[in-house]
Amino acid sequence: MADGRTTPPCVFLSLLLLLLLLLLSAANGLMQDFCVGELSVSDTPAGYPCKEVSAVTCDDFVFTGLGMPGDTSNLIKAAVTPAFVSQFPGVNGLGISAARLDIAPDGVVPLHTHPGGSELLFVIEGTICAGFISSANDVYYTTLNKGDTMVFPQGQLHFQINAGDVTAVAIVSFSSPNPGLQITAFALFANSLPSPLVEKVTFLDDEQVKKLKQVLGGSG
Amino acid sequence: MADGRTTPPCVFLSLLLLLLLLLLSAANGLMQDFCVGELSVSDTPAGYPCKEVSAVTCDDFVFTGLGMPGDTSNLIKAAVTPAFVSQFPGVNGLGISAARLDIAPDGVVPLHTHPGGSELLFVIEGTICAGFISSANDVYYTTLNKGDTMVFPQGQLHFQINAGDVTAVAIVSFSSPNPGLQITAFALFANSLPSPLVEKVTFLDDEQVKKLKQVLGGSG
Amino acid sequence: MADGRTTPPCVFLSLLLLLLLLLLSAANGLMQDFCVGELSVSDTPAGYPCKEVSAVTCDDFVFTGLGMPGDTSNLIKAAVTPAFVSQFPGVNGLGISAARLDIAPDGVVPLHTHPGGSELLFVIEGTICAGFISSANDVYYTTLNKGDTMVFPQGQLHFQINAGDVTAVAIVSFSSPNPGLQITAFALFANSLPSPLVEKVTFLDDEQVKKLKQVLGGSG
Amino acid sequence: MADGRTTPPCVFLSLLLLLLLLLLSAANGLMQDFCVGELSVSDTPAGYPCKEVSAVTCDDFVFTGLGMPGDTSNLIKAAVTPAFVSQFPGVNGLGISAARLDIAPDGVVPLHTHPGGSELLFVIEGTICAGFISSANDVYYTTLNKGDTMVFPQGQLHFQINAGDVTAVAIVSFSSPNPGLQITAFALFANSLPSPLVEKVTFLDDEQVKKLKQVLGGSG
Amino acid sequence: MADGRTTPPCVFLSLLLLLLLLLLSAANGLMQDFCVGELSVSDTPAGYPCKEVSAVTCDDFVFTGLGMPGDTSNLIKAAVTPAFVSQFPGVNGLGISAARLDIAPDGVVPLHTHPGGSELLFVIEGTICAGFISSANDVYYTTLNKGDTMVFPQGQLHFQINAGDVTAVAIVSFSSPNPGLQITAFALFANSLPSPLVEKVTFLDDEQVKKLKQVLGGSG
Amino acid sequence: MADGRTTPPCVFLSLLLLLLLLLLSAANGLMQDFCVGELSVSDTPAGYPCKEVSAVTCDDFVFTGLGMPGDTSNLIKAAVTPAFVSQFPGVNGLGISAARLDIAPDGVVPLHTHPGGSELLFVIEGTICAGFISSANDVYYTTLNKGDTMVFPQGQLHFQINAGDVTAVAIVSFSSPNPGLQITAFALFANSLPSPLVEKVTFLDDEQVKKLKQVLGGSG
Repeated sequence: MADGRTTPPCVFLSLLLLLLLLLLSAANGLMQDFCVGELSVSDTPAGYPCKEVSAVTCDDFVFTGLGMPGDTSNLIKAAVTPAFVSQFPGVNGLGISAARLDIAPDGVVPLHTHPGGSELLFVIEGTICAGFISSANDVYYTTLNKGDTMVFPQGQLHFQINAGDVTAVAIVSFSSPNPGLQITAFALFANSLPSPLVEKVTFLDDEQVKKLKQVLGGSG
Repeated sequence: MADGRTTPPCVFLSLLLLLLLLLLSAANGLMQDFCVGELSVSDTPAGYPCKEVSAVTCDDFVFTGLGMPGDTSNLIKAAVTPAFVSQFPGVNGLGISAARLDIAPDGVVPLHTHPGGSELLFVIEGTICAGFISSANDVYYTTLNKGDTMVFPQGQLHFQINAGDVTAVAIVSFSSPNPGLQITAFALFANSLPSPLVEKVTFLDDEQVKKLKQVLGGSG
Repeated sequence: MADGRTTPPCVFLSLLLLLLLLLLSAANGLMQDFCVGELSVSDTPAGYPCKEVSAVTCDDFVFTGLGMPGDTSNLIKAAVTPAFVSQFPGVNGLGISAARLDIAPDGVVPLHTHPGGSELLFVIEGTICAGFISSANDVYYTTLNKGDTMVFPQGQLHFQINAGDVTAVAIVSFSSPNPGLQITAFALFANSLPSPLVEKVTFLDDEQVKKLKQVLGGSG
Repeated sequence: MADGRTTPPCVFLSLLLLLLLLLLSAANGLMQDFCVGELSVSDTPAGYPCKEVSAVTCDDFVFTGLGMPGDTSNLIKAAVTPAFVSQFPGVNGLGISAARLDIAPDGVVPLHTHPGGSELLFVIEGTICAGFISSANDVYYTTLNKGDTMVFPQGQLHFQINAGDVTAVAIVSFSSPNPGLQITAFALFANSLPSPLVEKVTFLDDEQVKKLKQVLGGSG
Repeated sequence: MADGRTTPPCVFLSLLLLLLLLLLSAANGLMQDFCVGELSVSDTPAGYPCKEVSAVTCDDFVFTGLGMPGDTSNLIKAAVTPAFVSQFPGVNGLGISAARLDIAPDGVVPLHTHPGGSELLFVIEGTICAGFISSANDVYYTTLNKGDTMVFPQGQLHFQINAGDVTAVAIVSFSSPNPGLQITAFALFANSLPSPLVEKVTFLDDEQVKKLKQVLGGSG
Repeated sequence: MADGRTTPPCVFLSLLLLLLLLLLSAANGLMQDFCVGELSVSDTPAGYPCKEVSAVTCDDFVFTGLGMPGDTSNLIKAAVTPAFVSQFPGVNGLGISAARLDIAPDGVVPLHTHPGGSELLFVIEGTICAGFISSANDVYYTTLNKGDTMVFPQGQLHFQINAGDVTAVAIVSFSSPNPGLQITAFALFANSLPSPLVEKVTFLDDEQVKKLKQVLGGSG
């Protein structure tokens, strides 16, 4: 405490503190450390406009929705619970987002891509057969156990299947706040793309296309 | 020529020209305007290392392969002739590349994605039915005539079908020197991904999968 | 249809379809696959805010203006028809745009740069002498025939001249939705930059500058 | 099988299959879907050069090191197990990486930044008090329970403390394959930065600096 | 002047000039060369929306605040005068900004980071001891004299100390319009982060923390 | 020192320090905070490969060449002294670089662009008339005094002229380690681009072109 440089007398201090605070307060106005998304206005190619910093609280950076199991009582016996920018505005502009996968026994996250980001999967419970297909049409798939991590490159077709007897759970993260999700079977059979077009661009049989359109709710 | 500022006497000039050239020559060493890809060495996430500038010629920036029709006498009655960085090293690092589509009558460029870039298509000859499916599973398709342009967002499933009686030709460009190309039917049926896995992740019938694996040369 | 995994009984299906559609519908809300530009509001450094997805139609992704010849009855005997984001809002945020060049015999697209993107040119009709000058002051130019492609690196001075007897036509694309266009002669002689300044920064003679200012409509 | 468009006769097929495979094989050469890092050669600003695709296997995309608890019998009673590009070359160029945190009771991941990426934390076990300080010097901290997610913006000072009675475990991911890690106390007290400099730039007392240098192994 | 190509007769010219101006005027609508920030509306992850081009003047690109010495009569005997996007909206979207440092004798710019950009410092007057600490915990510091330049990588802890007898002045620039500024001592001692938390995450003694909180105005 | 949490007994410490150092040492291997350019090997689109970290010293981050006046005894009475990546490998990958301008009375930095980055100029001595021309062909120029700052958007034509009676000095920085430099007059008149081509693409008279080719050393 004898070093005057770092511990000036308190009288001196009280005088200078105001100046320091002014400096600090000036500095305070400079920053954009984060940009919590204001979802009520139009998106831009770089993300949503920022919520006023004065209105931001710690809650904006916390998302509690990935802690609960998704409902797997559906056709695919699986659930994808996203924490993308639409659910978790705190990730806006930060280049990252997450999701939770629940896959019941015999369940599957069907073949899909994320057009906007790479995916990193970490197995929390159970066993998952996961894989992707590269543009070079090579196939990379394996069985992942609890604690294993796998990365799926941006835009590549990939899938996850429960390979065990209990519900598998995984936390996945993405290299984008808004990676997108395009499930191949839904793209083919769950919208209004006319059956003849589907058949033409996939080589599938008419019977097969119509059957799956009926199952998945497609028209045309 | 009376303005001494811009046209100093020649004697003065010859003296100063050396200095100017030194300045210019110093400046010459500073630049990386382009980075013609040296394909013989390892790629990096940002593209190929650069060919020595002294070895670069105008030919490195010119590609002549898109002028000739592709061979459409195949299963899809269509041909994709790429001018990606592998064929056209001059685009390395420049954020752009191109390809030519030839689609014979009844031909199709099957459903596919480019994981690494958006696509812009310009119809040179004929009529093309083209479309894409968004992550939100909306379908956007239309008929394009000669002279029409259409853009397909990065990573989205899209297709092109000849909608006329003559061979259609299009020039497409991409927002990446290496956009990739993943044809859905080939990803499903033209590699070693086992049929049970294909069926599980697509909901397709076993019979359908095996039939198309035979057609497209897949195993498993 | 004997494979229970992919084709569950219809009763089971109708029950689960609702859940599936809920999942799908949830997924639908997550995506920003594209961002059609809303030109009526302020631009941002990353492009225009996005048009409401519900208002987007296929027409937003199609541009028909490049099919018609530009009017070349002007000083340069050439026409540049852009399909940049201002004309074609569908390319907003997608990293690509296009333009059409029509160059009548003896016509020229004068020396210019695109500050915001690289250019890729494909010759559709005729013969074009095209080239660029690098920062290192090297010159790369050649004669392009129908079907040839040439790339011009971002920000480099380049030009296109009709090198034949018929009107040449080219489709060019850019690695940006908004590449910009700065024609050197217009920058020097077609605005209010005072002649003495022009002469000082280019070494051109006063007589030459004033003559071209008159031709190109500059003042000062 | 009566639809000739998608299922041409087998004789026709066997003839055309070769052409198709040639097309496919040509396409195979075009892609860079991923770039598994070749760690034995020099890094670049965009990441490591790519391992030869022919040598890549599925194992390159899988990392098993995050499944086992880290050793928390140390000063901070915590362990950070990284799966950055140095440990997991498969994430090279993909914009994402991960790590595992184990924090024993009373343990702490001390104040630190990741200069190269944002962080997203998911609590797998236990309770964590986590927070960050913004450039504007605002403090955002809270208590996270199992299943909660929190995001920490790039480059901001943040920390994680065990807030319960059992070892807390979290999986964190980053928006970069190589986010870096700069622990403030180590930067101040665990290297050779001379004590007078440390005191000058932090306002800390000489006694305090020397004490912590001794604890953390710093010199000078 | 005998070359008819570049100097057509004036009659011809006056007719064609209108067309040329139309072309030019069309081109005028296409560009976004810059995006002067409109600070009154919400920021986005890529910066502020653009001020209307018609309202932009040369003054928007000029900042005069770095010419005057900052007030160094404060605790740190130093002043940081920023020309970030908040003070200088002309740099919005251009990837660069600046600041001026004034450091009186015995003054210091305390240990800090810029989360959003790298810094380049040029010494205009005096002598500065400057350094940074890398993620690998290596220390790089030296004494800079007038005319010396030093670069500090993005997000790394760094400092500047007057190492002479006269006030030192430096101009610094950043690789971002909004690099941020996080001063470690302020982050620890000048906000509401509770002392026990500060101690826990830094290993500092309670007495030290409370003393500096008092000096720097922190609470808790 | 009574707070056991942060200051455990020394015996305990000495035991745990080894573990801590192991953790730290592991962390040390993870980072790429910087990438000092290894200029002896091929560049990539993202910059030069990195020099081995163990060979990096503080000198790699310091450049002393901007402190000395450049030689202005040349045609333009000006000197540009660059600190781009080629001269200052420490800026490799960091998104920033610098240069020094010396402009003697009546001197000029002629009209030029930096294809790869925006420029920020700070006047250290004297008075400078500086300006740029936008793609929209608007002209922005003004007189800058000592202490003034001006920004020039990427790729736009700009110039600096001494507007006073003493040598003007400026420090400029760029938003790229390698911004490039293309001086219009040199591009037109100081290389081998044939005079007829120059005339065709600029509308300049043959006499003018040949005169300046002689002055600036061009051929053809």
